[in-house]
Amino acid sequence: MKINEKHYRTIWLKEKGLVQIIDQRSLPHEFIIEDLKTVADVARAIKEMHVRGAGLIGATAGFGMYIAALTADKNEPLLPQLATAGEQLKVTRPTAVNLAWAVDRQLEAITAFVKPPSQPSPEGGRSKFSPPRGELEGGVNKAEIIQVALETAQTIADEDAEFCRRIGEHGVSLIEEISQQKNGDVVNILTHCNAGWLAFVDYGSATAPIYAAHDKGIKVHVWVDETRPRNQGARLTAWELGQHGVPHTVIADNVGGHLMQHGLVDMVIVGTDRTTYTGDVGNKIGTYLKALAAHDNGIPFYTALPSSTFDWQMRDGVREIPIEQRGGEEVKYIQGLHNGEIKKVLLTPADSPAANFAFDVTPARLVTGLITERGICAASEDGVLGLYPEKRK
Amino acid sequence: MKINEKHYRTIWLKEKGLVQIIDQRSLPHEFIIEDLKTVADVARAIKEMHVRGAGLIGATAGFGMYIAALTADKNEPLLPQLATAGEQLKVTRPTAVNLAWAVDRQLEAITAFVKPPSQPSPEGGRSKFSPPRGELEGGVNKAEIIQVALETAQTIADEDAEFCRRIGEHGVSLIEEISQQKNGDVVNILTHCNAGWLAFVDYGSATAPIYAAHDKGIKVHVWVDETRPRNQGARLTAWELGQHGVPHTVIADNVGGHLMQHGLVDMVIVGTDRTTYTGDVGNKIGTYLKALAAHDNGIPFYTALPSSTFDWQMRDGVREIPIEQRGGEEVKYIQGLHNGEIKKVLLTPADSPAANFAFDVTPARLVTGLITERGICAASEDGVLGLYPEKRK
Repeated sequence: MKINEKHYRTIWLKEKGLVQIIDQRSLPHEFIIEDLKTVADVARAIKEMHVRGAGLIGATAGFGMYIAALTADKNEPLLPQLATAGEQLKVTRPTAVNLAWAVDRQLEAITAFVKPPSQPSPEGGRSKFSPPRGELEGGVNKAEIIQVALETAQTIADEDAEFCRRIGEHGVSLIEEISQQKNGDVVNILTHCNAGWLAFVDYGSATAPIYAAHDKGIKVHVWVDETRPRNQGARLTAWELGQHGVPHTVIADNVGGHLMQHGLVDMVIVGTDRTTYTGDVGNKIGTYLKALAAHDNGIPFYTALPSSTFDWQMRDGVREIPIEQRGGEEVKYIQGLHNGEIKKVLLTPADSPAANFAFDVTPARLVTGLITERGICAASEDGVLGLYPEKRK
Repeated sequence: MKINEKHYRTIWLKEKGLVQIIDQRSLPHEFIIEDLKTVADVARAIKEMHVRGAGLIGATAGFGMYIAALTADKNEPLLPQLATAGEQLKVTRPTAVNLAWAVDRQLEAITAFVKPPSQPSPEGGRSKFSPPRGELEGGVNKAEIIQVALETAQTIADEDAEFCRRIGEHGVSLIEEISQQKNGDVVNILTHCNAGWLAFVDYGSATAPIYAAHDKGIKVHVWVDETRPRNQGARLTAWELGQHGVPHTVIADNVGGHLMQHGLVDMVIVGTDRTTYTGDVGNKIGTYLKALAAHDNGIPFYTALPSSTFDWQMRDGVREIPIEQRGGEEVKYIQGLHNGEIKKVLLTPADSPAANFAFDVTPARLVTGLITERGICAASEDGVLGLYPEKRK
């Protein structure tokens, strides 16, 4: 999407061996582009949340495996080095499904290239031809392997963007319908946290229908939940909507219910970190409260997600989705801009304890529908498996 | 209640013409006692929230009318000046019913003293006796009127403390019952905003049963909603509970629903700024969301209030209770402690707009009961008028 009129993705290859990201820690106050040149750079960027969001974490890990291939010791076998790099990346955010998924997808692609199942590499091939040590692996030139890793990284990123674009294409119909019912009046959409393009490679999940509507000329206005304690809404969603020119208003997380009681919200769209195939939506803490309010006021509540975010094993999200507990200091302290510098301030009595549950689960009964890259479905086993019949057991 | 082992009220007369308050804006980081000597001081203290909370706003307005009487122009009739001062105080905060109530109570008390209904002041009395201009009003010495205003202010404050004490006495039975059901295990109570003693003259409304339970040796633990955007929970409730030694944990406002889904909340007690006689509860923004979650999880949700907070006219709280909108900068900026100094930091993009609705209304259907100084009743017209039969029309 656009930043100051220029199109950006959240991650891109600048030149050979140089991946660039937007360091999201300093948004919205500073716009910093960061270079990633080593696997350690990539691991730190994920672990310390320079990048965050399911799709973007996956894409970053994909590029991380390309960097791992490029910077590997040429005098040692490549595959074991890549396996080690993959482990190094996976442990940075152990709960992020897309991270392991992207690493494994790279390892499978590279392994299949080096040892294609239909053409097993000849036994003893290397010793027979005595190639220059370090240039070949399994009979394949390492430069070609690096090329496969790069192409796979690009594919992961492109697919992420493309899936989000399709979510936008499907979801915009819902907004258009409300716009027509309101005779072209502004459609007010509430969102929680940042399921925007900053959480993916482009477009975002929850924001994709909003950007699509805005770009089509449909009048939209977004109520942006600030999303305590890490304020992803106030910091990131407000910033990206503002940069793209979408009208929005930041609100405290407490406000949505009141707005809904008074007809000021036409629909809710949120993202998700994990949604069961039965339709229970794990998302940033506080999502459940907004779903309750939407339900109480007859307002449609949608979750937008690429299919990679479905959990195809879990039936009961409230009981089964593990909820990360983070440090209480994220509640007690907050950072913001003071006289041009980013400062962290204490909000509570110094000795009051704080608890920090990062996610909650919204039961499917409160979810009007799921917006996926294949279309919109009911938040139910029948709905989800109707769109993804190949997942039927 | 106690601050550092010493007993305090939130407002007191230090000496003639000098009312003192705790300036709550700098809590929990600094403990500052502020002098109020003029009506403008009092109006500013209410408007800019040096004092806040239904009971304390009422008590402050009560003392404000005493100051108005004391500082009035002696050469002009007093009653019109008091009426003007009353208007000046009433407009500072639109939602709090106690504010207008306290002003009107003072005006009625003073008017009744100046013009007792049984002894109408003689027509032309003043011109007949030609008293020294400025010393008398309606045949009554102005010093006596000031004394009536002071006594009324003290009575309003004392009644507030006494009503809160009784709320504690009634409400503690609910906590005791849960404690017994849990075989003496810790009773987890969630509260929103600050309906603590800092919001009243002493004890608080929502906190009164909690303090009473704690002081009786019943094990309680309080989940303290931080209560964005002004963080009255994180700043004030956490501080006063900590000062009094009550175990508590600060949480983001987003967390309560998750806690309730997982059995970590036994009951909710909140205060209110205005409750209709039909049981609709106007309270700090976000209360409605917690009531929805409590209802969804079968957890009792109580509102504690002295009868001065009832609105005896309004039937439909959601439609009728006026909701104050405050400046968006309260959402965009927050203050906290940085290197020993209170600093204000910007949380959002500088040019993102923010909306700031200060209250919401929880429909009576979501309220398990009301805890008042006369006892506990259902949140319904029958329940409320059963306790306050003199209010039947």
